[in-house]
Amino acid sequence: MEKNAIYPSRRNFIATTVTAATGLAGLALLPQAGFSQKTADSDINIIGPKEGYSPQIGTLVSMMTWMRMVVLSSVEKLNQQQLDFLFDANSNTIGALLMHLAATESLYQGNTFQGLEDYSENDKKKWSVAMDLGEPARKSIKGHDLKFYTDMLTEVREKTLAEFRKRDDQWLMKVDPKFFSNMPTNNYCKWFHVCEHESNHNGQIKWLAKRVPGAKPGGE
Amino acid sequence: MEKNAIYPSRRNFIATTVTAATGLAGLALLPQAGFSQKTADSDINIIGPKEGYSPQIGTLVSMMTWMRMVVLSSVEKLNQQQLDFLFDANSNTIGALLMHLAATESLYQGNTFQGLEDYSENDKKKWSVAMDLGEPARKSIKGHDLKFYTDMLTEVREKTLAEFRKRDDQWLMKVDPKFFSNMPTNNYCKWFHVCEHESNHNGQIKWLAKRVPGAKPGGE
Repeated sequence: MEKNAIYPSRRNFIATTVTAATGLAGLALLPQAGFSQKTADSDINIIGPKEGYSPQIGTLVSMMTWMRMVVLSSVEKLNQQQLDFLFDANSNTIGALLMHLAATESLYQGNTFQGLEDYSENDKKKWSVAMDLGEPARKSIKGHDLKFYTDMLTEVREKTLAEFRKRDDQWLMKVDPKFFSNMPTNNYCKWFHVCEHESNHNGQIKWLAKRVPGAKPGGE
Repeated sequence: MEKNAIYPSRRNFIATTVTAATGLAGLALLPQAGFSQKTADSDINIIGPKEGYSPQIGTLVSMMTWMRMVVLSSVEKLNQQQLDFLFDANSNTIGALLMHLAATESLYQGNTFQGLEDYSENDKKKWSVAMDLGEPARKSIKGHDLKFYTDMLTEVREKTLAEFRKRDDQWLMKVDPKFFSNMPTNNYCKWFHVCEHESNHNGQIKWLAKRVPGAKPGGE
């Protein structure tokens, strides 16, 4: 498996670990003042409340930020040919999968911030091919370098964060009576899904990236 | 894409959505009493504190429970041949990936509950092939039905939950000074990783499951 210095991999677990073998005294207790203490955004591996957000929304933001960091590290060295590479007739390209992440986040923005059941008409034009993937996406999502996709992801994320800053933990816990599997689903679950959905496709992206033209031989 | 009735998919988003179009009045505010209110375990799509755990640990548990439900729904119809199917010489089987999830969780149990830098000797014998995957796993992890893997995952998870019940949110926020990328990392981040790691491999599992012998034709 390609060693990803950022994503915790099997091989670098030991190399990067200095753990709690020394007991409590060896660890910094951060935050000191309970769960509401905010930590700086540069503390990427500190999951918890963040400045500018209510405590739980900030915790969610820290998860989403961490997850995005991991996804970007999977694709940072890919060129256009690799982003456009089609593994088989039923696969998606890595570029299309990246656009799909932005499309998904946009869909949940509309749903949770505006109460929409589907994209607005404008957004549908913009996002539905990337949302649905498949043959239309294979035909049309190509010819872009990495920056095209990362700029798109960043723009969508900035809108999410701006909307999160206006809301509070009560909003996060608010329940939609019928959503996933037609069951009660809170905003936290919807946004947790947006977050884990990035990891879902990141697993596919990493698998594909090992098989694109120019990939290191012998990767799993 | 195969429609998974549980995992939110592009096509069933609209079919299953009754959203906030009606405004706040249309939604149940649950929990009523702020973030510390516990919700019953059967509320699978309610991310938040759960009975028996401190508030943040319970929230983490709700995420891990949701994620596990999604992974299991990806594999619930697979037979032994499909679990053992090797897509190409550098792939992992779905069965091996399931065992890898259990191996990963076990590794983080040792690290965060006992301060270990690596598996104990006993656990190394039990888990290291599944942890490292690759050729040894291709050779040896085979011949098991689904129940073998799901029992293993359940047993490991029950140990995690038992240990979580003994701990509190201060423990969850405790920082290991050097871990992921040699940077400060709290227990919450380590366990968030365990959770998203399941989604990472679930994306690969779903991709492979569309290509196993007996899979529905035309899946992406």
